[in-house]
Amino acid sequence: MKSRITVGMIGFGTVGCGVAKVLLGNAEVIRKRVGVPIDLVRIADLDITTDRGVDVPNGVLTTDAQSVLHDADIDIVVELIGGYDLAKRFMLTAIEQGKSVVTANKALLAVHGEEIFHAATAAGVNLGFEASVGGGIPIIRAVTEGLVANKVTSMVGIMNGTSNYILTRMTEEGKAFQEILQDAQKNGYAEADPTFDIEGVDAAHKLALMVNLAFGTPVNIKDIHTEGISSLSTLDIDFAREFGFTIKLLSIAKYQDGEVDARVHPTLVPSQSPIAQVGGVYNAIHVVGDMVGDVVLYGKGAGSLPTASAVVSDIVDIGRNLLLNIAERVPVASYQWGRRVPVRIRPIEEISSMYYLRFVVRDQPGVLSQISGTLGGQGISISSVLQKGREDGAPVSLVIMTHRSSERAVQTALQTINTMPFVAEPTTLLRIDEGAVS
Amino acid sequence: MKSRITVGMIGFGTVGCGVAKVLLGNAEVIRKRVGVPIDLVRIADLDITTDRGVDVPNGVLTTDAQSVLHDADIDIVVELIGGYDLAKRFMLTAIEQGKSVVTANKALLAVHGEEIFHAATAAGVNLGFEASVGGGIPIIRAVTEGLVANKVTSMVGIMNGTSNYILTRMTEEGKAFQEILQDAQKNGYAEADPTFDIEGVDAAHKLALMVNLAFGTPVNIKDIHTEGISSLSTLDIDFAREFGFTIKLLSIAKYQDGEVDARVHPTLVPSQSPIAQVGGVYNAIHVVGDMVGDVVLYGKGAGSLPTASAVVSDIVDIGRNLLLNIAERVPVASYQWGRRVPVRIRPIEEISSMYYLRFVVRDQPGVLSQISGTLGGQGISISSVLQKGREDGAPVSLVIMTHRSSERAVQTALQTINTMPFVAEPTTLLRIDEGAVS
Repeated sequence: MKSRITVGMIGFGTVGCGVAKVLLGNAEVIRKRVGVPIDLVRIADLDITTDRGVDVPNGVLTTDAQSVLHDADIDIVVELIGGYDLAKRFMLTAIEQGKSVVTANKALLAVHGEEIFHAATAAGVNLGFEASVGGGIPIIRAVTEGLVANKVTSMVGIMNGTSNYILTRMTEEGKAFQEILQDAQKNGYAEADPTFDIEGVDAAHKLALMVNLAFGTPVNIKDIHTEGISSLSTLDIDFAREFGFTIKLLSIAKYQDGEVDARVHPTLVPSQSPIAQVGGVYNAIHVVGDMVGDVVLYGKGAGSLPTASAVVSDIVDIGRNLLLNIAERVPVASYQWGRRVPVRIRPIEEISSMYYLRFVVRDQPGVLSQISGTLGGQGISISSVLQKGREDGAPVSLVIMTHRSSERAVQTALQTINTMPFVAEPTTLLRIDEGAVS
Repeated sequence: MKSRITVGMIGFGTVGCGVAKVLLGNAEVIRKRVGVPIDLVRIADLDITTDRGVDVPNGVLTTDAQSVLHDADIDIVVELIGGYDLAKRFMLTAIEQGKSVVTANKALLAVHGEEIFHAATAAGVNLGFEASVGGGIPIIRAVTEGLVANKVTSMVGIMNGTSNYILTRMTEEGKAFQEILQDAQKNGYAEADPTFDIEGVDAAHKLALMVNLAFGTPVNIKDIHTEGISSLSTLDIDFAREFGFTIKLLSIAKYQDGEVDARVHPTLVPSQSPIAQVGGVYNAIHVVGDMVGDVVLYGKGAGSLPTASAVVSDIVDIGRNLLLNIAERVPVASYQWGRRVPVRIRPIEEISSMYYLRFVVRDQPGVLSQISGTLGGQGISISSVLQKGREDGAPVSLVIMTHRSSERAVQTALQTINTMPFVAEPTTLLRIDEGAVS
């Protein structure tokens, strides 16, 4: 049996530093659990002079990623540089070299996952990516191992910490998106280019991966309807509150009639539901299995040490395999490679939901009648109506909540309504999810 | 490689039926994940004539447990008869026969875990017991694998569904313990002999196991201070509510200065905290790791199919090991057997907490002064006082909430106070935990 497990890391940024801290700081307890030491023997980064507050042993730092990829003494390569091209090349090279790979790179796996999964499977090496979804929450292990006996029927969650942080502050402070975003950028809660986080792209990447694993299907990220929070108004947050709802950026995947309804968008959830109370950078994922029923996992969805906790759980998992000379004990894609069957992702036009519709109209007789008549003509049934903010002459908001309706019917009705002469602004459409655990 | 995994089950009660339903109903999806079928080839039960609503193949049912234990063609023995002596004998025999074992028997593992863990380790067989804590929640896997990179600093949770169901109904309906218990027994939510559930014994068994795994220490179940809910009064539930608290039966384990403060008792938690909102038969466990921070897992803590989901996750896990001819990839006790170090469980007298004290006193001048003086004399600082229910002549309840104080000081003060002439009943002491995730 090997007397130790050796790890080489590429990328020494926020998560990389966390991984070094965990491996060095908890070396003793990890050794007691694994049986042999896990040694971080090389760290490659373009910048090896900045002090990152981690006391790395002499000779470990290098600027040469190839020295990680091609060192026969390194068992596990940890890829933490992010991005697509270079990260993918590094990972495929490591796999070719017969090394096991650990990554937190959900963007790469969501877009090129099939190629990488296939390469790892063909090479018979281990690939770990627990840190790519839910930060420190062991959600991938829960779905692929803990709930392995179940057909997953639904996964709904908050999968992006930055957008949840911004939404939480917008909700609590009543301030506009831009103001909170700028403050979040100052405080390090949002990146200089926050696009992936605030436009739902990161949440969609994570959802795509979870759909892949839970349902055993390749996923084309373009098939996942994705809306972010950047155009969300405090007006809608306030109206939602009056109806007893809180707005969260949800990643939603529901298995229905052999298809998966998978989408990311701001969603009204009942304010009393646990998911509504997940604040700040926390994530929560509500999984429903046909046997187990509801399971919810909650924890820090990002951050140096929480994410590192997940990366190191993969290192340990793979280390245990390497000590026993085995690989791919659990298939990299959760299902056996040859047994995955493509499942159709249902286009957004084909879903059904309850809707929150905010019309901005000039207040004149017959407005409600024409709008409700058009909705009714599409078979859309109204559950409640609220009108507010009336000022002489100025357009007013008219909010209509619907019972479960088809998206196509709603979109068709809105097309008609948006051209009506009394409509002052395009209508705001938000979807409602009452499936949250209560 | 083996072409299938064979399972023999002893015990065909609630959980056993669930396991059969899961293995039969989800056979296809499990096979797609594992690669080979998992076949339930024998079920031993004393009663094999009652129709349990599961369509078991011909020839599978037997009354002869030995035919499960001694069949060379059976890979995994699932023990689901519960209890101590017979279950232990069956498990040790299966282990002797070189079979892997899966169980949901927390009582047995809490009391005889060391012997069974040692036998499995020595024999090099797999032992799975995910279903023994948290029902369908994959909490054991989360702690031993998902959070393997962490030193666990705290685990606090609702680990018994029956008592939580009763407490939830007492809180919501304002009815007394006995009334709800009888109703729960009628509805199948409580057993005919509910002692283990309502007296905290089951929750203590589960906590003992979690402490064992998280901290790598043998645990003597007698060292865990255990109080149940049978003497809890609706009066205390109402007073707690007025202070903004909800009463839950918590299992608490906190690592402090090289010792573990582990105990089970009714506990006041802030009503706004997520743990306070865990209702009915649901369980929730809040784990804090030094690297990952807060992680909460929530789900059904009992029931046929949720528990079976966990049992089958163990069967799959072990099946995967058997296909690769390995065992004990993750040590049965989470730590390597030789590397476990006994950790002292701190006796209740040595803990500190915030306290809820309800005195029943005859209303006369000087009572508050004498009580608060006695508390102050022990260094106990008061955070709030509430007096209610005054009727002419009848004793009244006086509730005092304390800041963090030593249990010993509080007990000493209560000894003195309980002998004071104006005290009409022994004082009610409840502990407060504000550590719940907020």
